[in-house]
Amino acid sequence: MSGRLYGLGIGPGDAELLTLKAVRLLGQVAVVAYPIPASGVSLARSIVADHLPTGIVELPLPLPFDGKGGAEAAYDQAAAAIAAHLDAGRDVAALCEGDPFLYGTFIHLHVRLGRRYRVEVVPGVSSVMAAAALAGMPLAARDDALVIIPAVIEEAAIERLLATAQAAAILKVGRHLGKVRAVLARLGLEDSAICVERAGQPGESVRPVAGLAEAPYFAVILVHKDRPPCRA
Amino acid sequence: MSGRLYGLGIGPGDAELLTLKAVRLLGQVAVVAYPIPASGVSLARSIVADHLPTGIVELPLPLPFDGKGGAEAAYDQAAAAIAAHLDAGRDVAALCEGDPFLYGTFIHLHVRLGRRYRVEVVPGVSSVMAAAALAGMPLAARDDALVIIPAVIEEAAIERLLATAQAAAILKVGRHLGKVRAVLARLGLEDSAICVERAGQPGESVRPVAGLAEAPYFAVILVHKDRPPCRA
Repeated sequence: MSGRLYGLGIGPGDAELLTLKAVRLLGQVAVVAYPIPASGVSLARSIVADHLPTGIVELPLPLPFDGKGGAEAAYDQAAAAIAAHLDAGRDVAALCEGDPFLYGTFIHLHVRLGRRYRVEVVPGVSSVMAAAALAGMPLAARDDALVIIPAVIEEAAIERLLATAQAAAILKVGRHLGKVRAVLARLGLEDSAICVERAGQPGESVRPVAGLAEAPYFAVILVHKDRPPCRA
Repeated sequence: MSGRLYGLGIGPGDAELLTLKAVRLLGQVAVVAYPIPASGVSLARSIVADHLPTGIVELPLPLPFDGKGGAEAAYDQAAAAIAAHLDAGRDVAALCEGDPFLYGTFIHLHVRLGRRYRVEVVPGVSSVMAAAALAGMPLAARDDALVIIPAVIEEAAIERLLATAQAAAILKVGRHLGKVRAVLARLGLEDSAICVERAGQPGESVRPVAGLAEAPYFAVILVHKDRPPCRA
């Protein structure tokens, strides 16, 4: 009988934001798979390091970020490497930062393996929630609609969504900061928007968007129409 | 010196989706506060029951759902009861199902106490993530914009948001099911929408929206424009 695949949400970076379920499964599976960057250490592995039992098989997967060239082939290879363990009857936990189904790398493995194997997704704390918690700024309350927007989409779509919703979290900001700031300014929202970086990780920060010259890819911009303008 | 207030996200209902941080804080604080319904037991308390140490002071708070009459007065009273403990130097953990800042009851306590006391928000797994995990249906990938919509907002706003975004989670469905189905049908999305109830709790279910006659208040409708029509 083939093994079971777990898509394991491991939260935004703070190892204390692991769930009890994720910790339990790390103690039970035979294999732990995780993305590794082209250089440097795996953030996903570092989050769970204290919970990896001796003897667990580690399967590091070279997975580029979305949109980089070669991503499809890399996910094909990663899925094949995981499938070999599942076919041999071994349970595999595929680590995924944040929540697996909210922009998670696991989605690309799920597409490839979800119909052939028993798969269970274990939800995790998203970086969007961690950013709001760090900033002390509610995402949405009562009848607020909240839009979660990757900054790469076209300016007109960002503007339509922001104009209708009460609140927004804008992700993957990076080189799209200027475009996002222009939309926020047109809607009169720039002075109340904040930019959160690395929530729950070393070097975390919360800054006003107004006056911001640059932002990293993993920055999250939060805006809420009921929020007063930023002071710091 | 006054005590510290923790807004403690405790996840969608499955006690295993508590974070390690929530469990640690429950072992440290002097007081645990939680909402109680007009009748029956507190779901929030039941989620953490195994982690409440002997001798912890329990502060049950009668808090109505959003929009019910008397909510503001009830939150004023709850905040005053918590403030009395904080003034006496006792740390308080206010439990909040799901994530505290995503439609959480804690937002109404944060508004009242956030400027007067040291407050830390501990993010949690939202019911939106738990619903997607149970359904095996990704919320958003790559460049998808995701809208999170309380079903109570006006039909035209729901339609504008759904028309622009790639994916949606529609919350607090209940008596608004007919309106939501009408919008989904006009946009050609009804056959691919699913309705998730009680994810991570006893009696959890995933059903197609097409043909659905009724849904409870806590049902979550998920829709993604790339998803093929539902079979079951």
